[in-house]
Order: sequence, then C-alpha cells, then structure tokens
Amino acid sequence: MSQVVVAYHSGYGHTRMVADAVREGAAGVPGASASMIDVATIDDAGWNRLDAADAIVFGSPTYMGGPSGAFKTFADATAKVWFTQRWKDKIAGGFTNSLAMSGDKSWTLAYFVTLAMQHGMIWIGTAMLPSAVAGDPDALNRLGSYTGLMTQSDNVPPEESPGPGDLDTARAYGRRVAEYAVRTRR
Amino acid sequence: MSQVVVAYHSGYGHTRMVADAVREGAAGVPGASASMIDVATIDDAGWNRLDAADAIVFGSPTYMGGPSGAFKTFADATAKVWFTQRWKDKIAGGFTNSLAMSGDKSWTLAYFVTLAMQHGMIWIGTAMLPSAVAGDPDALNRLGSYTGLMTQSDNVPPEESPGPGDLDTARAYGRRVAEYAVRTRR
Amino acid sequence: MSQVVVAYHSGYGHTRMVADAVREGAAGVPGASASMIDVATIDDAGWNRLDAADAIVFGSPTYMGGPSGAFKTFADATAKVWFTQRWKDKIAGGFTNSLAMSGDKSWTLAYFVTLAMQHGMIWIGTAMLPSAVAGDPDALNRLGSYTGLMTQSDNVPPEESPGPGDLDTARAYGRRVAEYAVRTRR
Amino acid sequence: MSQVVVAYHSGYGHTRMVADAVREGAAGVPGASASMIDVATIDDAGWNRLDAADAIVFGSPTYMGGPSGAFKTFADATAKVWFTQRWKDKIAGGFTNSLAMSGDKSWTLAYFVTLAMQHGMIWIGTAMLPSAVAGDPDALNRLGSYTGLMTQSDNVPPEESPGPGDLDTARAYGRRVAEYAVRTRR
Repeated sequence: MSQVVVAYHSGYGHTRMVADAVREGAAGVPGASASMIDVATIDDAGWNRLDAADAIVFGSPTYMGGPSGAFKTFADATAKVWFTQRWKDKIAGGFTNSLAMSGDKSWTLAYFVTLAMQHGMIWIGTAMLPSAVAGDPDALNRLGSYTGLMTQSDNVPPEESPGPGDLDTARAYGRRVAEYAVRTRR
Repeated sequence: MSQVVVAYHSGYGHTRMVADAVREGAAGVPGASASMIDVATIDDAGWNRLDAADAIVFGSPTYMGGPSGAFKTFADATAKVWFTQRWKDKIAGGFTNSLAMSGDKSWTLAYFVTLAMQHGMIWIGTAMLPSAVAGDPDALNRLGSYTGLMTQSDNVPPEESPGPGDLDTARAYGRRVAEYAVRTRR
Repeated sequence: MSQVVVAYHSGYGHTRMVADAVREGAAGVPGASASMIDVATIDDAGWNRLDAADAIVFGSPTYMGGPSGAFKTFADATAKVWFTQRWKDKIAGGFTNSLAMSGDKSWTLAYFVTLAMQHGMIWIGTAMLPSAVAGDPDALNRLGSYTGLMTQSDNVPPEESPGPGDLDTARAYGRRVAEYAVRTRR
Repeated sequence: MSQVVVAYHSGYGHTRMVADAVREGAAGVPGASASMIDVATIDDAGWNRLDAADAIVFGSPTYMGGPSGAFKTFADATAKVWFTQRWKDKIAGGFTNSLAMSGDKSWTLAYFVTLAMQHGMIWIGTAMLPSAVAGDPDALNRLGSYTGLMTQSDNVPPEESPGPGDLDTARAYGRRVAEYAVRTRR
C-alpha cells in the first residue's frame, strides 16, 4: 500500500476539516492508505509515520501571510531529517485555509514547496482548471489555485465553513496525490 | 506637483480599466497629478515621464502565473535605468487583473516588488483590510490583497468587468500612492 | 525512451552553456534521450517535441528579477496548451543563471514552478545539499539551491563562465530529472 | 528623533551580529535613534517600543527555507496589531542570515515583505548594486540582494562570521532605513 500522510496544523478547526477531506480523498484510492498528523503535537510515532510515508501533504492556516508559527516550528524540526535527506523523492503537496479569497494564501503554499524542495521531495499540485464562475461556492477550485489547494472559510464554526465545493476540491486533491503515489511507487 | 505614472500593459482592455481607475484615484489627491503609459508601446517621451515621476504604479494582467510577456519585456528594458539607479527612492506600487479569484495573481505582484527593489524604489501596498464578506463584488478589497491591488474580471467586455467594488479599490489604491507621494516629496 | 527537453532562452550564451550541461547529464541516463529548444525561436516542430516530452526543464537568465521577456513571451504562448492541460503529469524542472550570487535567481525558479503547476506538471528540484564551503567554485551546488538549479557567471565569454562546479551541478540535475522520468514512465 | 527598532530572532548568535550592525548603522544617522528587540522574548515594553517606532527592521535566520519558528510565532502575535492597522505607514525592512550563498534566503525576505504589507507598512530595500566580484567577502552586497539584506555565515562562532563585508552591508542598510525614516518623519 502507498501511504499518504496529511501533516497539518489547525488553529480553530477549519483547516482540520480540509485536512480530513484530503485524507478521505486519498484513502479512497485503490492501493493507498491515508492518515493525519497534527504537527503541533507530533510524537515519535508521528515522525516514524512521516519517515514511512510515500507522500506527505502539508497543511496550515495562513496566519499573517504565511504558515502558522506552530507549523513553522514543526518545519524547523525537520532539519534533523534534512541532514540525511531521508525524505528524498517522497511526493509532497500542500494546502492552506484562510478568511479572505486571496489573503496571501499563495505564500503559504510557496513555503510548502520550498520546504519540500529542501527535502528533495517531488511536488504535485492540483492540476485543476479554475471554476467557470470565479468564486462559485459549490464549484471545484473556485479560487483558481494550481500550486496546491486553497480553501476559504468564513468566521463561523468549522462544520459550516469551508463549504462543500472547497471540501470536494480537497477530496479531489487527496485523490490526485494518492493516485500519483500509487502509480510511481517503487 | 507630485507626479504619479501608471505604467501598465493590458491585453484585452480589462487591466486598462483598472489602470485608469488607479490614475483617477491618484489624480484626485491635492498636490498630485497622474497619467498613464502603455508599456507595450512606450516611446522616449514615456521614458522621460517615468524618469520624472515621483511614483510609478506597475500594472499587468496575470498571464500563465506572472506578468505578461509584454510587461516583462518592458521590465527588461529598464536595465538601462538600473545601471545608474536613476529611479532610486521613487515610490512604487502595482496591480494585476485576471479571471480567477486567486489565480497566481500574488506572483505578478511579487514580481513588481522585486522589480521595484532592483531599482531601489520604496514599495507601498494597499493598507486595506479584506472585505467583511469574502468576495463581495461591491466591497473594497474583496479578494484580500495587501502587497498590491488585485482585481478579477469575467470573460465579458472590459466595460462590464471588473466590477464596481474592484474599481473603487483601484481608486482608493491610487489615492494612497498619491497621498504618500505628496507627503514625502522632497 | 524517456524524452527530456530543455526549453531555454539565453541572451549572451551563458545560460545556453548551462542548458547544454543539463541536456548532457540527462542524455547520459540509460533509457533517456535529451534535446534542447531555444524558446525564442520555437517552431511547430519544437512545440511537437514539447508535447511528446516526458520531462521539460525550463531555463532562462534572470533579468531584472525574473525570467527574460523572451522566456515569458514563450510562457504566455503555452496558454494554448494550458486550455486542454495537455502537459498534465509531465515532469518539470528549471534553472537560471545570472551575474550575482543570489541576485533574485530564486524568483525565476519560483516562476518556473508556478508555470509548471498551471500546466499540472510534477516538479522536481535539485535534491542536493549545499557545498561544504559556501561559494566554492569547483563544488556541486555552491550557491545552495534546492527548488531548481542556480548558476552564476561573470562578465566574461560563456566559454569561461559559469565555472566547472556549476556545469557539473547542471549535469547532475539533468541526470536527476532523466532518472526520475525513466523510473516513473508509464 | 526617528526611532528605528530592529526586531530579530537569532538561534546561535550570527543573526544577532547582523542585527547589531543594522542597529549601529541606523544609530549613526543624525536625527535617528536605534534599538533592538529579541522577538523570542518580547515583553510589553518591547511591544510598546514597536508601537512607537518610525521604522521596524525584521530579522531572522533562514531555517528550512523561511523565517525561524520563533520569528513566525512572533509574527502571528502581531495579529492583534493588524486588527487595528496600528503600524500603518511605518517603514519596514528586513534581513536574514544562513550558511549557504543563496539557500532560500529570498523566501525569508519575501515573508518580511508580506508581513509588512499586511500591516500597511512601507517597504525599503537595500538600493545597492551587487559587488563587482560576486561573493567577494570584503565587498558590499556580495550576494546581490535588493529586497532586503542577505548575509552568509560559516559554521564558526558569530565573532568570526559573517565577515566584514556583510557587516558593513548591514550598517549601510541600517543607515538607509534611518535616513528614510528621518526624511519622511511627519
């Protein structure tokens, strides 16, 4: 089985909803299994799971124009993996959620790419054209993001937002990552 | 008078609508005058106008994740200005328009920042919080952009889109640039 | 055979030296063939070669903080490929050369990533730790670049600069791209 | 007096050397005073000093391709400032240090720009051409950075590295920030 691990941080639960949808999409792919790790509380078992993964999908809210401090602290801790390039050639992807349509989400995704490249990983984006109607809440890729997954949530509980279109986009992205992991597994 | 010049390229006219709104906003500021230059057809008089400007606002559609080839060709031609750092300490800003909500518009703005920094210019962003309702077509800064101005237009004639909220945001950004130019004029 | 195509623009010949070294590295991998296309003069045969490629490595000098106007004009022309996502799942990489050590080369590489992601391609970086002595002219990855290949050339003819370490780094990157293309070929 | 505050994090002391050189450069400008705050241990007095500053220069090592987790945690805490845009129109700059020549330092500087723009601040770069000989350890701007200050240190004690050229570049950048702060002070 190809192992997909969603390594995420979530401040108020909205990003966790997205993480879970990515996981669900990946888990539905024949030959793949998927799980989640909250990087703010990662333990040795979590690090071992990351080491064993075929694909890691990074996720964080966008706070003040970048990944959260908790996510960045986790990223810094991966320096011990970097020294030996232990994650080399693993597949990498990423997603981020915030309140505004654009709201500097691009920078959080760009950070995930940079982190993945420092680890010698292989980056996979959404490969989805934007929705026909920009911003349509029920459509796939309504924000028009390619490098990774962008979702938007309002200031309401995580059960209400992000909406169904964003969660479907998350599932589709999870599927894409898992399918590529299955297809390219050594 | 502080001179604000909007140096833009527009493929189909939508970005030109935004450029004109930025110019209009700047022109309304006491002590400022504002004009536009289409960088795809810039001539010696245009280069002289840029040299004399207190502030230059760069504008381009986002094509394939960056400024248009025509804009980038203009940017390359500014190398002759760069050698002598002739634009040092001028104020710089930027805007971009495209079809999708996010659609890699961030990267076009990031390029404008980089170009301005190579010229030793001073960068000024929108200084606007995102709209209360994300994406609200009548609201200021509905896309939630800080580094520069983002607008979104549908696949309809430039007279119909981008909408009134985006054009108001453009006017507000033009005002901000001009006010800063007036206030800091040597 | 896995086809690797180096799609580059070169202003004065230095970037062409790097392009050729990437090609040479890729061509040496069993099961791979490699060729080059100057995107400033690409013709129908060139576009067909890109369509048939398993991997495309983008290359450009860094001019005024980004890819050259000629490269960007080529990138804009790939919009016709983008509409049908014809390059989806091809492997992508990139390289850039300029006079300064850093000199905003990061932004040219970042643009290549963004372009590749708009096309639904899979990005592969250098997976090389930086040289032990920063800047050592004979060492691999002396500039410490991960996302793609960075080389530096002095203001001398292309035969003299970039130096042997940078060209070896280019060969190693070409090999890496070709090996991944061979391994993951459907 | 115009107040310049250097808000930095340093892991092993090298970035602190750079922070101190920026402060020293700023403090030497007539009409300016300068001080430092370690953001990892910032207290109420520190926050008050930031609120009172005319210019804030952000500084952090580049860890795993971005600002350190400690810096990002500080940046997240500025959200309480962001809500009221209390830092609007303050001048902002930034610097970063790491082991490699390039080593994704660009991304840390880009983050500082993004953070400053979220706060409605005005960004000022180095306005320095690269050194004539790329990488020359005694030269100003040997790495060729425009958006902000880049320095490079070897794996030796902070007293030995970064070298004199980088520290002089830091002083020059501090001067530039302070001079602009003095000139534009309301």
